[in-house]
Amino acid sequence: MKVLIVGGVAGGASCAARLRRLDERTEIVMVERGPYVSYANCGLPYHVGGVIEDEASLLIANPQLFRDQFAIDVRTGTEAVAVDAKSKTVTLRDVASGKETSERYDKLVLSPGAVSVKPPLPGIDLPGIFHVRTVPDARAIRGWIGGSGRGRRAVVVGGGFIGLEMVENLAHQGLSVTLVELADQILTPLDVEMARPVEDLLRRQNVTLALGEGVTRFEQSEAGGLRVHTKSGAVYSADLVILALGVRPDTALAKSAGLVLGDRGGIKVDAQMRTSDPDIHAVGDAVEVRDIVTGSDTLLALAGPANRQGRIAADAITGRPSRFRGVQGTAIIGLFGTTAAWTGASEKSLQRLGRTGIEKIYIYPNHHARYYPGAKTIAMKLLFAREDGRILGAQAYGEEGVDRRIDVIATLIQKGGTVYDLEEAELCYAPQYGSAKDAANFAGMVAANVLRNDMPVSHWHEQGSSLLLDVREPAEVEAFAIPGAQHIPLKQLRARIGEVARDRPVDVVCRSGQRAYLATRILRQHGIEARTLSGGILSLQQMQPVAPR
Amino acid sequence: MKVLIVGGVAGGASCAARLRRLDERTEIVMVERGPYVSYANCGLPYHVGGVIEDEASLLIANPQLFRDQFAIDVRTGTEAVAVDAKSKTVTLRDVASGKETSERYDKLVLSPGAVSVKPPLPGIDLPGIFHVRTVPDARAIRGWIGGSGRGRRAVVVGGGFIGLEMVENLAHQGLSVTLVELADQILTPLDVEMARPVEDLLRRQNVTLALGEGVTRFEQSEAGGLRVHTKSGAVYSADLVILALGVRPDTALAKSAGLVLGDRGGIKVDAQMRTSDPDIHAVGDAVEVRDIVTGSDTLLALAGPANRQGRIAADAITGRPSRFRGVQGTAIIGLFGTTAAWTGASEKSLQRLGRTGIEKIYIYPNHHARYYPGAKTIAMKLLFAREDGRILGAQAYGEEGVDRRIDVIATLIQKGGTVYDLEEAELCYAPQYGSAKDAANFAGMVAANVLRNDMPVSHWHEQGSSLLLDVREPAEVEAFAIPGAQHIPLKQLRARIGEVARDRPVDVVCRSGQRAYLATRILRQHGIEARTLSGGILSLQQMQPVAPR
Repeated sequence: MKVLIVGGVAGGASCAARLRRLDERTEIVMVERGPYVSYANCGLPYHVGGVIEDEASLLIANPQLFRDQFAIDVRTGTEAVAVDAKSKTVTLRDVASGKETSERYDKLVLSPGAVSVKPPLPGIDLPGIFHVRTVPDARAIRGWIGGSGRGRRAVVVGGGFIGLEMVENLAHQGLSVTLVELADQILTPLDVEMARPVEDLLRRQNVTLALGEGVTRFEQSEAGGLRVHTKSGAVYSADLVILALGVRPDTALAKSAGLVLGDRGGIKVDAQMRTSDPDIHAVGDAVEVRDIVTGSDTLLALAGPANRQGRIAADAITGRPSRFRGVQGTAIIGLFGTTAAWTGASEKSLQRLGRTGIEKIYIYPNHHARYYPGAKTIAMKLLFAREDGRILGAQAYGEEGVDRRIDVIATLIQKGGTVYDLEEAELCYAPQYGSAKDAANFAGMVAANVLRNDMPVSHWHEQGSSLLLDVREPAEVEAFAIPGAQHIPLKQLRARIGEVARDRPVDVVCRSGQRAYLATRILRQHGIEARTLSGGILSLQQMQPVAPR
Repeated sequence: MKVLIVGGVAGGASCAARLRRLDERTEIVMVERGPYVSYANCGLPYHVGGVIEDEASLLIANPQLFRDQFAIDVRTGTEAVAVDAKSKTVTLRDVASGKETSERYDKLVLSPGAVSVKPPLPGIDLPGIFHVRTVPDARAIRGWIGGSGRGRRAVVVGGGFIGLEMVENLAHQGLSVTLVELADQILTPLDVEMARPVEDLLRRQNVTLALGEGVTRFEQSEAGGLRVHTKSGAVYSADLVILALGVRPDTALAKSAGLVLGDRGGIKVDAQMRTSDPDIHAVGDAVEVRDIVTGSDTLLALAGPANRQGRIAADAITGRPSRFRGVQGTAIIGLFGTTAAWTGASEKSLQRLGRTGIEKIYIYPNHHARYYPGAKTIAMKLLFAREDGRILGAQAYGEEGVDRRIDVIATLIQKGGTVYDLEEAELCYAPQYGSAKDAANFAGMVAANVLRNDMPVSHWHEQGSSLLLDVREPAEVEAFAIPGAQHIPLKQLRARIGEVARDRPVDVVCRSGQRAYLATRILRQHGIEARTLSGGILSLQQMQPVAPR
């Protein structure tokens, strides 16, 4: 048997290595159009930023290792240009010479990855405009900056993972950076109010944000720099432009093979990563996968799922029954010492799909015991089903401990867990690591309080005719007053309960929601229809558009 | 209704607060024999060490807050000395005056906690010998040290959580510290080989370890210091002795009430934290709980479960159906910048219970991508059921990311998850946070390889008549040779496979097990009965007794 693997990075390389471990006799050929296999795509921005100084450390494995240890015929600089599924042959082109050859296969694995989105804008090919997709891309950007970037200006177009990581790394190299993003928020997998504090951080780091701004054209200035024009008429000068407009599945080869594509434009595969042609498997950024939370098909260009898919394709080819369970969209980004991470569905994605019966809460727990020095706040949003408490998604942002809480919730989502599971999770606790009621437990407890109707919640964007009751201490109200709110400090509430209106719902607010919860309990037991404003003042601040500083 | 709560720290305070939130009308009395309620027990060693400098920050809540916000009648300095379950009264004694009063209850909640083990050793009450259980204890130790401890000597007796945290904090205060532990290892919830690297760390921090050493007596030296005598005849001089011999449930009151105790000496309760008397609930360190992994009854003196039990007792009292799901023993300790954590059962506890069909693996993954600067190794042991892959326990030690991996595995154990779930977990990945195949995934993959019989494993302590085959590079073998092993570098294995013995099992070894896995696959496909030595050289080093340095 001969297996031909097209693409030698995450999905392809994983598939090749596992295939060899499962079967010593199969002939394995792996072709890669670029000069490297198995390189650390996700490290490229940090190489540009000088955090990963040595380019060689990005090369996780090399063709020689694949040959020596795995007896795999690796061919770099070799592009697969066409598939003839009938005759089971692939046309390969040597990138350097242009020479074409034909390669036969018994099983074909496509791991072509994704291509950077590159709209046909005037001037988009000008020198000084870069993508960040390959090691040569990163090398070219480093060469262009040439040492310190101090006093130079960069424009990054696109506020997703790569765009933001480039913002950070260019800033580290001393450049002043402007981020241009078409949407009205960065990091679109996050709900807008959870992206706001990240945007606020970028501004505090002196990054200029141009949100809701589409680029119309690029031009060269007389002085030799670049000018980036946007729809609003603004013009941003730059010595360097990074295009990070996202990626789309590279399906050219799949089309040549006549494979069925999905609605989202990716290669359609079954749970064994088999395409519409039973002898062709596909893995990685080019395929459509099932979202286990929403049940819908989706594209997810991340290394973790690509690796697992490569393994499953190898299993399937060798006759094993492994199945890809789908994706849940767990992701993380570090920015200037802070972390944003999420897993599962966002509120907007659930709305887009017309889902109802969704509840949400906002909480602001400390990442470890408050009494131990250095406790940092984590801003968390949890989405869950009203009917059964199933966790649908979580988003978090903070300086410490964000990865851990999202990983716990991701694990629960994987197992169909509920907010009741989350409140009962027995997690690591010592004062420098967490709290006896961990931030993750706390999310579960608050959500369970909502579902048990102990603490109905309301949200700032839902404020209607209800009475706003502020139960904070007088000094706090003096520092930040809520217009139109009635003020009764929590400790006076029992004595002054007669002052609270009974003719309309009461939304109780405090700093983060904890005292409001207790006040809600008191009021409801006195027959007043009270709700807790989820997240209190902290969520209000997060929802208001952040003024540029 | 009147609820009397005995004990105002984790379990009692949680119960009181939740009870009030659930029911505004119940009369709630909470008595605490000490001067403080709701204080941060777990922070005491760090207060001694000066990490938490301000004593007031250990006081999470105070009686006034309970009165103002929760309308709870809090009485500190009040000891409950007897319960008359028939007449539903508790005898209370004012600690200061000795005056006794009688308090009636409808429902009684016992949260008396645990008492420090204090064997009747000669000299144990000498000045300079301390427990670390309460805020006054910590204050007394700080007073005894009085400023810098430089040039002074401390002996800590007991190598559990508190003992080790005291070792670290006394060392931080400049004292030279000797740890005396009766067992032949520290941190007995860990299997011995997982405790070894922690012991090694302590020695590198100039802590003197006296393992397998029982104290026989304490005496005052002529110079005014203390002398600690042990069974071996050794004598350790000290200016300060900390007793951290563990705790036992405080059941004096439960006995006076005639409540049924369990085999482990704790108060017996049902899933609603109800004792053998339907009007008396008990929570916290004093109760026996079910271990969800082993199904046996156990004692677990930790704050997290105590808090959850307090909430459940409040739920039960107000007629709610909440149930305590049991414990799994998740725990964590930080020592000199490193972290040890675990969840579920240990190998020795499973052996003690006579369980069979248990598999285990050792792995040494990086806490984040190797190509990103600062990757640290995590030593992990995973225990799982041969039959269905259910995860039974995990232990980990390292400098970074230990808490997160143990929390992920703890969450899977909670949900009855398997090693197959773990290999498929979709966790946060960016190079500064993890790997595309995260350390937790890696544990699942390796374990699943074992269960699928792709990679049978052997362990160092099982080495019998098998051939040891070392597949490392020549330079590695030169640096550290394994006596008696045959050496064929992995990349030559296919060509030299005829040199491998076929008359006995072959145990393949490399540095960490990764290359040995590939070699095992090659050998097995050539009909050789090969196994991978789990964890390779790294696990060998961990299993050998560490020589004092």
